Parts: sequence; structure tokens; C-alpha cells
Amino acid sequence: MDHFHYRNGELHAESVRVADIATAAGTPCYVYSAATFGDHYDRLAAAFAPLEPLICYSVKSCPNVHICRLLAQRGGGFDVVSGGELHRALAAGGDPARIVFAGVGKTDDEILSGLDAGIGWFNVESEQELENLQRLCESRGRSARAALRVNPDVDPRTHLYTTTGTKETKFGVDIERARRVFDAYGRHRLVRPCGLHLHIGSPVNSVEPYVGAIRKGLALIDELRGAGFEIDTLDIGGGFGAHYRHTEAPLAAEYAEAIVPLLRGRGLRVILEPGRSIAANAGILVTRVLYLKSSGERTFVICDAGMNDLIRPALYEAYHFVWPVRPPPGFVTDDRGEQMVIDGTQVVDVVGPVCESGDFLALNRPMPPLRRGDLLAVFAAGAYGMSMASNYNSRPRPPEVLVGGARFRTIRRRETYADLVAPEMSADGQGGG
Amino acid sequence: MDHFHYRNGELHAESVRVADIATAAGTPCYVYSAATFGDHYDRLAAAFAPLEPLICYSVKSCPNVHICRLLAQRGGGFDVVSGGELHRALAAGGDPARIVFAGVGKTDDEILSGLDAGIGWFNVESEQELENLQRLCESRGRSARAALRVNPDVDPRTHLYTTTGTKETKFGVDIERARRVFDAYGRHRLVRPCGLHLHIGSPVNSVEPYVGAIRKGLALIDELRGAGFEIDTLDIGGGFGAHYRHTEAPLAAEYAEAIVPLLRGRGLRVILEPGRSIAANAGILVTRVLYLKSSGERTFVICDAGMNDLIRPALYEAYHFVWPVRPPPGFVTDDRGEQMVIDGTQVVDVVGPVCESGDFLALNRPMPPLRRGDLLAVFAAGAYGMSMASNYNSRPRPPEVLVGGARFRTIRRRETYADLVAPEMSADGQGGG
Repeated sequence: MDHFHYRNGELHAESVRVADIATAAGTPCYVYSAATFGDHYDRLAAAFAPLEPLICYSVKSCPNVHICRLLAQRGGGFDVVSGGELHRALAAGGDPARIVFAGVGKTDDEILSGLDAGIGWFNVESEQELENLQRLCESRGRSARAALRVNPDVDPRTHLYTTTGTKETKFGVDIERARRVFDAYGRHRLVRPCGLHLHIGSPVNSVEPYVGAIRKGLALIDELRGAGFEIDTLDIGGGFGAHYRHTEAPLAAEYAEAIVPLLRGRGLRVILEPGRSIAANAGILVTRVLYLKSSGERTFVICDAGMNDLIRPALYEAYHFVWPVRPPPGFVTDDRGEQMVIDGTQVVDVVGPVCESGDFLALNRPMPPLRRGDLLAVFAAGAYGMSMASNYNSRPRPPEVLVGGARFRTIRRRETYADLVAPEMSADGQGGG
Repeated sequence: MDHFHYRNGELHAESVRVADIATAAGTPCYVYSAATFGDHYDRLAAAFAPLEPLICYSVKSCPNVHICRLLAQRGGGFDVVSGGELHRALAAGGDPARIVFAGVGKTDDEILSGLDAGIGWFNVESEQELENLQRLCESRGRSARAALRVNPDVDPRTHLYTTTGTKETKFGVDIERARRVFDAYGRHRLVRPCGLHLHIGSPVNSVEPYVGAIRKGLALIDELRGAGFEIDTLDIGGGFGAHYRHTEAPLAAEYAEAIVPLLRGRGLRVILEPGRSIAANAGILVTRVLYLKSSGERTFVICDAGMNDLIRPALYEAYHFVWPVRPPPGFVTDDRGEQMVIDGTQVVDVVGPVCESGDFLALNRPMPPLRRGDLLAVFAAGAYGMSMASNYNSRPRPPEVLVGGARFRTIRRRETYADLVAPEMSADGQGGG
């Protein structure tokens, strides 16, 4: 699951005391485990090895350049969804040929930067985007490979906001329509639609939606090949789950057990786009208790990390286990579920300093006795944590620290007040009129 | 309401064509109207003039230094909720004596920076915070004035996330408890609790909750004065509504008509903390249509502004009117409500480029025929727009442009890809272990 465990009564990231990191880096801070990133990547690679897949790390889940580099060094490619993510993947030493550019709203500048870099695939989401890609390839005199994103119309049973593969979403084209798109755009001299892209949502904590989507995708590929299109790529997307509570998500081997037999020997370059399943458990957010207070029937634990640092609880009603870095004796646990029971806990709301009631990390949680200054860990915060952080309430974003074995280093420094206003100070101040 | 209106068939910000700003600044971009900021401030000041109030602009609503400066020049003080906002208020030339520092999770560093700056008031939210303020004043040898935030337990009937003045929230102390707090902490030699702070939520589109809260606050003040406490300040908070659709929020004069008689002649320094009512209508977000597509029964208008630029629709299900900057002939309207009817519109979803189904600006909206490249304005986006923007999907945050009459200038430049990764490049790379 991950390398964040209690040892001698206190939380360690691999072999490093989390409290030591908090002392060095201050709070709040994100702490990542290199071994956890590596393990998750390696397990996926091993499980899907019979397909010799290209594993394109989903940069949006945890985009730090140093994290991207770590995955590039293992042979991973990148799933990018913006020019900024492409910039990060290249800065991390990513091989352009192993980069997939997805996203429903690619601008001309973004497409051109992908063409200039010579990326492997554009995952195309609409007819107009395909037309535009063709136009830009012609103007630039460059060729490109495109995978058409199709909506297999399976229900991933995840949060409404992260469901992406049903009909009636902004993503991809309906599978019935895909054939017509190939007929209309499939024989351009510079842009070759060579594959399909399936992405059904995230997190998807069961294997069946993938099986259903891949079966539909394969049937379409057979049809397209029958019509003379050279289809050599199937991007099955990402969305594999993470372990927010226990081991509620299928293991890489379980996804692979169902998926590999479907795709073996089909003459397809298989692409995976894991993000959450690699990054979520590889990071925690460390925060310090500022104040304790009672109000009405409730007890509030007010921390120095807020919704600007981690918006998932407010935005998705997401569950993150929160527990002291140094629990009182008798309160050490590796159970991260809501139902965890230890005598002597009190039910509290763990909230942040931001001026909104929506600024909470955890509601109605059993918690050991706490005091001002105690450190808390917010677990499984590696994916869509720092990635979605903002400066709301003019709060500088926290630093990111990467642990490897017994060592740690800052891979993104804490922002300063000067950082917050820098683009306002250097604004041109000029104008028209 | 504001100074964004259609003239000669196209949207103007004051006297400037919005299309000209989009050409100069690129899209997406926030465009603000200085006259609208000024009008809203002036109307509040005029309506509440009999109370000679201190109007402390709520920095979190729209924190750009140049906007803060505009309000400081009109005599406004500042409501800040973090060290970062204090930094902004001071950078804007704000008078420290006219600054109120609120927020449930002030860190020691933040409190010390407020003490060192000599700010007017700390709005204190808990006993522990008051103890901590006393401790820090002693260690620094400084005195401070504190207003105790009390929860008047009135229901503002707003979004759950922005309701803050009922019991069972993390904010303030229950009104029944306030007397005990004064008894316990009210006679410190350096920290004088000299007032109360009431804040009931935002937006509050009716006057009654204020009347109810203020009545409760005044009763408590009478009781405290009777017990010998010198109470000279009543901060009635913010939360006044904005005009997202029509003129659904009370006018400044209507709030004042109910509130002024309650507070006149009570020997109180009255503080107001308006944010949304000043800033919301003073800004629009301008975005360009990248692609149009149909999926199932729905039509999607894919824009270059996403949830990272404006998260209110995803986070609060907030309504923002969206309309073309240059509508086709016959489609010009100043009606911004959902029920607006014009023949020839088509119902669409206006969505962004971010890889989430939650990335939308408007759902199920009638819209004139659109083409790629058309500009859209997202109205009433001045408050909690740029303020909450993030770099999610590694998207640089948009620039902010301020219009004054026939001129405009960039008051925050667009972020670059280099900006995104700069704190990662300069991270120390050192570590312990």
C-alpha cells in the first residue's frame, strides 16, 4: 500500500521520522515516499508485462518535476493534458515519443508545442479538434499520430465530477459515432488516427467497467481494421483506484488478470495512464494543530493546512484518514477506515484556517486526545493534493519533500508572500484606450 | 449593478471594448471595472454614513494589490484573514490602524506580523487563540485590541459551505459563552477585548439575519458594559450579496435602512467587512470558445477557461451568467437570469479544458449560435474568482486587467510555464537523514 508506517510509536516516511521533516520543512507540507511511487509503478509494469505496455504517468495527479523524473527514470512515459504538463514532462527528461497529449480543450499553442516536441500521440476528443490538428499539422509541415477518445458508455460508479466515460459528458465521442469520424478524417496525409483512447473515470474500484469498455473498444477496432484503417494503439486510460481506507482498490495484479487476456495477441500497443494508483498513497500532508475549541456539541481541531492546500474533502467529499504523527501511547493504528475503533478517542472535526465552513480535512472522526502543536498526517494525499492547491486566502502553497530511504530533500520550496504578489508587481501597467 | 454593458452590439467594460482587451491580454483573462469597485464602495459609505463606519474591504474576495490600493485611496480599511492578506493590504498602502485580522487559525508568525505592523484589531475566534495572543503580546511587549467573534446563531440561508454564524461551525464562540470569555480573559494588561465581531455567512441576500444578529450582539454589549468592560467596537462582518442574475441582493441603502437605526448613538465604532458586494459585479472572466461538440443529447461549448480559473460553479454550484462578448444580431441582452428567453438560442453546457466532468462554467444554458474563436464573458466573477484560482492541470493562472474609463492596464500578468515549476527548480535539494 505505502511506506508510511508507525514505528516506535511515531509515523515514519520510509526510514525517516515525519516529525523531523516537519521540523526541517515547517508545516503544512507534503511528504512523498519515493519507494511508494516506485513500488506502484513496478507492480503495474510487472502485472501488465505480458502486454509490454507503455505506462504513461498521469502528470495531473502529482505534477512535481522531481516526481516525474523519478518515473521517467523507470521507463515511464507521460499522460499530459496541457502545455504546462508537457513542459513538466520534458523538464523531467521524459521521452517525447512516450508522451500522450489528452484533454478536451487543447489550444493551438498547446498543439503546436506538442508537434514541435514530437510527442507520441494526441488523444483527440472531438471532430473539431481533429480538424484543427490537421490544419496545424499542415501549417507546420509536421505529421502526428492520433488516438480517438471514445466513450464506451459504461458506468464507473465514482463521483459525478470524475465520471468521464459515459455518454453526455464533454469527453470523447460516442462509440457509435467513432466509425463516422474515422471515415471522415481517417485518411489525412499528415494526421493518422491510429488508435482508440478509453477513459472511464477515476477512481474506478472495480475491474468490470474496464472489461466492458475494452470489449467495446476491441469490437470497434475490429470494425475499423476491417474497413482498412491501420489501428495499432489502444490507450485504456487510467482511473485505477487507491487505498484511502484499507486495500479497497483492486491490486495491479487483479486489474491485469482481467485485462491482459483481452488484449494479448491483438497486435496493439497498449497504453496505461495511471495517476492516482501510483501517487495517492505515495504522499501525506503534514499539518500542525493550532487551536482546539468546542462550539455547540462539536469539537474542532483547527490546523494550519486548509482547503487551499487540499481541496478534495470540500470538492469531492473525499475521505482522507487523519491521525497524529506521534499518537499518545495506545493510539497507534494502521487501520485507516472510518470504522476504526480505539477506546478513548473523541469525535472531532479537523478543519483548516480558511474562512469557509467548507474548509475541512475530516468531519466526525474519532481522534486521540490532542494538544496545540501536535502534528497530524493526512494520508493518501499524494494525488490531486498539491496538484489542486491554490493561494486562496492569500496562503502560500506548502513545500513538497521527497523521502528516499533514510534521506529526504525538498523538491518544491514553500511559497513566500513575495511570490504571491510577484506577477502583480511585474505587470506591465500599460494599457490601451 | 456594474459597468459591463453592451453598446453597439458588443460588450464594453466601462468605455473599453472587451474584445480589445482580449486581443491585448489573451484569454482567459479577468477584467475589472474600477468604476464599479468605486461605486459599490461609495454606495456603502454613503448609506452607512450616519454611523461613520470603518469599511474594511475583505481582501480574500479579490486580493490583487492594485484593487486593494484603489480601495485604500477611497479611505477603506482591510479585513485580512492571513499573513499573506496582511502583506497585500500593507503593500497597497493600507493604514495598519484600519486593518482587522480575522480567521480561525492564525499562526504565531501571522499574529506577530500583525502586532509588529500595529493593526487595529484582532478578531479572535476561540479562547485558545486569545490566550495565545496574550502570550505573544507579553513576549513582544506589545499591546493589542481584540474583538471577540460571537456566533449569533441566525440562519443566513446561504450555501452550507459559506454559512458561518450558526452554532456548530468552527467560527467564533457561542453568544452564551462570550460573557465567560470576557470574564476569564477580559482584564489582561496588554490585550484588551474591546468589541464583538459578528459574521453570519456570505452571500446573505436579506436584511433580517443582520438585524437578528445585531440585536443579539447589542444585548451582549449592554451586558458586558454593565459588567465593567469597555466595549467600543462592533464589527458587523460582511456577507452582503451581489447581483449574479438581476438585482437579487438588497442595495446598500436597504441594508443600511435596517441596520443604521439599530446602531446609531450606541457609542460604537462600527466596522463593515464587505467583499463580495464590492468585488463580484466589478469583474468578468473572458474566455474563448475552442471547440463545439455534441455528445448524446447534449451540446458542449469547450472554452479556454476552466475550473482552475473559476471554481465557484464546481465547488458551490454557483450561478454565473455567460454570454458572448459580440453576440449575433438580435441576441444582445442585459438580462442575466436563468429564465432569460430569446428566440433562436440552443441549450448548451459551457465547459472548460480541465480533465474533470466537474469542470464547467454553466450547465443547461440557452446560448446564441456560437463558432470557434468566439469570446464569452462570465459575469459577476470579480469575487472569489481569481482569488480561488489554482494551477490544476498545470495551467498558468490568467492575467487581471483593470479598466478605468477608456483605458485599461494589466494589474497581474499571465503566469508562464516557468512560473509553474520555479519553486521546484530552486528547491534546496538538501535534506537530513
